Amino acid sequence: MTRRTDRTPLHLNAFLMSVGHHEAAWRLPESPASGGTDLAHYAELARIAERGKLDSLFLADSPVLMGDPGRRPGSKLEPTVLLTALAAVTSRIGLIATASTSYNEPYNLARRFASVDHVSGGRAGWNIVTTAGADAARNFGLDDTPLHRDRYLRAAEFVEVATKLWDSWADDAVLADKELGVHARAERVRPIDHRGTYFRVDGPLNVQRSPQGYPLLVQAGSSEDGKDFAARYAEAVFTAQQTLEEAIAFSKDVKERAAGLGRDPGGIKILPGIVPVIGDTGAQARELDAELDRLIRPEYAKRQLARTLRIDPDALDLDAELPGEIPGEDEIEGAKSRYTLIVDLARRERLTVRQLIGRLGGGRGHRTFAGTAEQVADTIEHWYDAGAADGFNIMPAVLPSGLELFVDRVVPILQERGLFRTEYTGTTLREHYGLPRPANRIFDVVDSRAGHLGIALSGAR
Amino acid sequence: MTRRTDRTPLHLNAFLMSVGHHEAAWRLPESPASGGTDLAHYAELARIAERGKLDSLFLADSPVLMGDPGRRPGSKLEPTVLLTALAAVTSRIGLIATASTSYNEPYNLARRFASVDHVSGGRAGWNIVTTAGADAARNFGLDDTPLHRDRYLRAAEFVEVATKLWDSWADDAVLADKELGVHARAERVRPIDHRGTYFRVDGPLNVQRSPQGYPLLVQAGSSEDGKDFAARYAEAVFTAQQTLEEAIAFSKDVKERAAGLGRDPGGIKILPGIVPVIGDTGAQARELDAELDRLIRPEYAKRQLARTLRIDPDALDLDAELPGEIPGEDEIEGAKSRYTLIVDLARRERLTVRQLIGRLGGGRGHRTFAGTAEQVADTIEHWYDAGAADGFNIMPAVLPSGLELFVDRVVPILQERGLFRTEYTGTTLREHYGLPRPANRIFDVVDSRAGHLGIALSGAR
Ligand SMILES: Cc1cc2nc3c(=O)[nH]c(=O)nc-3n(C[C@H](O)[C@H](O)[C@H](O)COP(=O)(O)O)c2cc1C
Ligand SMILES: Cc1cc2nc3c(=O)[nH]c(=O)nc-3n(C[C@H](O)[C@H](O)[C@H](O)COP(=O)(O)O)c2cc1C
Repeated sequence: MTRRTDRTPLHLNAFLMSVGHHEAAWRLPESPASGGTDLAHYAELARIAERGKLDSLFLADSPVLMGDPGRRPGSKLEPTVLLTALAAVTSRIGLIATASTSYNEPYNLARRFASVDHVSGGRAGWNIVTTAGADAARNFGLDDTPLHRDRYLRAAEFVEVATKLWDSWADDAVLADKELGVHARAERVRPIDHRGTYFRVDGPLNVQRSPQGYPLLVQAGSSEDGKDFAARYAEAVFTAQQTLEEAIAFSKDVKERAAGLGRDPGGIKILPGIVPVIGDTGAQARELDAELDRLIRPEYAKRQLARTLRIDPDALDLDAELPGEIPGEDEIEGAKSRYTLIVDLARRERLTVRQLIGRLGGGRGHRTFAGTAEQVADTIEHWYDAGAADGFNIMPAVLPSGLELFVDRVVPILQERGLFRTEYTGTTLREHYGLPRPANRIFDVVDSRAGHLGIALSGAR
Repeated sequence: MTRRTDRTPLHLNAFLMSVGHHEAAWRLPESPASGGTDLAHYAELARIAERGKLDSLFLADSPVLMGDPGRRPGSKLEPTVLLTALAAVTSRIGLIATASTSYNEPYNLARRFASVDHVSGGRAGWNIVTTAGADAARNFGLDDTPLHRDRYLRAAEFVEVATKLWDSWADDAVLADKELGVHARAERVRPIDHRGTYFRVDGPLNVQRSPQGYPLLVQAGSSEDGKDFAARYAEAVFTAQQTLEEAIAFSKDVKERAAGLGRDPGGIKILPGIVPVIGDTGAQARELDAELDRLIRPEYAKRQLARTLRIDPDALDLDAELPGEIPGEDEIEGAKSRYTLIVDLARRERLTVRQLIGRLGGGRGHRTFAGTAEQVADTIEHWYDAGAADGFNIMPAVLPSGLELFVDRVVPILQERGLFRTEYTGTTLREHYGLPRPANRIFDVVDSRAGHLGIALSGAR
């Protein structure tokens, strides 16, 4: 195995998906009936992740009831609320929530994330998504999802406005001079007077600059526009990668795009997803995985797959391969990269619809890896050493047990190998990821190329 | 003193305004420098209020940096985030946050409040406001505040959409039948397909019905449109009332409007604000009050008053009465009732601008009462017995000390007199206020006149 010369400890993020990433996880005895709205359940997950010294936990989101409510738990707590509740029961782990740039206003969202960063002592992160799907659009007065390209244009302007708002208070703005009777120094709090294509926002924000300056900026779309957006704005990238080769190419691609914009490629952490199914033996792990797949109700899953592929469910035969006639990625206005990944996976491995449903049921396109704790640690080390990943997005099939097994069995092996921290050394999310606190571009940055968003902004104008 | 025959325990709400309601409170030694963003400070306030068995705590809000940042702390935590953080450090007290119907989307806000109700075990309340002011409008792409009337029309439709979303899951929707593989019963989760003037929202919500059904609906505008809105939708009303007579008339007015819509007038709790300044003697209390007024910097306050009155600051002479030429309420598109209250107060008591600033500095139009604990209890009992109030919005001039004095000295007197609970008897906010959990109008209500919103909705159509 060739060692990476830039060997820094790898990063681990716990992707908390109510009762687990496998769509049938809720049918297991351990799963609470209303896992998605059960704070005690999430609090337990957060404590387990923190016990494992993980960098962060992560909550996905879309402002819509996803899919058929009969199929799997659809009711969930809103992520910025849940993140705040989890801040209260943890003290060190980073806290990342997803929020949509298509269905929020920058002033409102910037306030909420700044507030979470304050109440958590600098542990907030924002997974910036553009939200695919007509069903979400129809909760916000639209008939269909805005065009993919427009969503990303709006996302770029949204991040620009949000970061300006976070920078609208200098770090030293609050004087609180009780003697003199001056609270904040007026010249250190400034309107942003943003006038753009999608937004007009005067500012300043009504929240002073937060411990991290602003939340860690995370991104999770892998289309061409998605990768450009990541290269420009993201400090961490979640991605679904099925093979080592593709993962290496993806990481190289995003980092090169970032370097092309003048950014340090080390300032952008690539975190592919892995669904670790852990057993005492490889055979036991594979049996656990198969057991879960048997709990999937194929009629629900077939309907869902047909929706993703934008074809008639009747065109899908459970015991045959995908039909030849399905749309190309360029016809998809939703989640482009996920779409292509599914089709490629089915074609490459010549999977039947039933087999494909099994593979997607586990990780919705992410790589499922069934094996012993040792084998899971090996594949993590292998991908890390090969430059396919700066860390991993851990997506247990079943929660809490899958996270517990990972923390109690895999993490100690990674620690022994010197690949993972044995104690938190920093207190903020950015410190865990080895990333700097961003300079304030309104008040402190003389050279506009100093921070990664110095570049982002001038590039976006 | 004539006793009210419907003698039910009165209700007390702690209005938590960072370091206190007096605009100069931040200059006192006890005030933390960044009180508005200091979670530990708010957690202390919440614990004190809960120790006093208060019904609820309350957070005001506007999505804008209010006034001059030099004048008083302007940086604050976003209220739904702060409410969630306070849910974690309390177990019984109700938790009410303000949110604007003018600058939010119903789907997003309904989710957040349903989520807070879940994580707090049924303790959430929503103070529904329409947000006055051009400065807030300019954070959301507008040049000026929408017209007063339009704001209230949008507010009514907003509440209609939100309550439909909260009712889009039947209470018994989640089956979680692991054996059968059916999570929620599809026929007990329904789209709302709202098509209105301001909103088009398909639904259903992606949060199952919460412990209280939905948050307590609170309202705080006292204009004619405001009172109509309260009569239709509110379960509790915050109001600023300077005199007993006006308070009695206000309460009677709102309850009659509610009765006119077929609602039980007892189902709407009127809570006037009081700024209690408590001393060992009346003289000591008045000196404390005067001391605070001396800490106001009149040049800031004069600028603020001129802005509220929409006149030139130079037209105000600190040692003279208000000029004769100021606009009438009908010319005001902002906060109508607050405007009229200020002008009436100044004219009635023939206050100089300096005196008016002092009176407003304490409670921004709310009644300041300086006296002993016994005297504060007396005035509360007096107003309550006279039918001017179902309870009070307690607005300490200085926090935490003002709240602590109220809880430790006034509450025991009210308890001794049998006017206030000595222990919580319920677990939800609605239970504290003696209000029923609302029926689900989509799934459970056969007679549309059953709940107060049955009427509200048919009336609004
Ligand atoms: C690990 C991971 C998590 C994601 N989480 C979300 C999410 O919570 N909400 C969402 O709308 N999209 C999520 N996505 C999808 C993308 O962010 C993106 O919105 C979508 O794929 C469209 O982008 P693309 O066309 O650039 O791939 C996630 C993707 C990955 C890889
Ligand atoms: C105790 C109290 C608290 C209030 N809190 C808020 C608030 O937090 N945010 C806000 O925009 N308005 C608040 N208001 C003002 C009103 O809700 C309303 O928005 C404004 O007065 C306009 O309504 P009106 O013209 O009907 O009076 C409050 C009023 C009172 C009496």
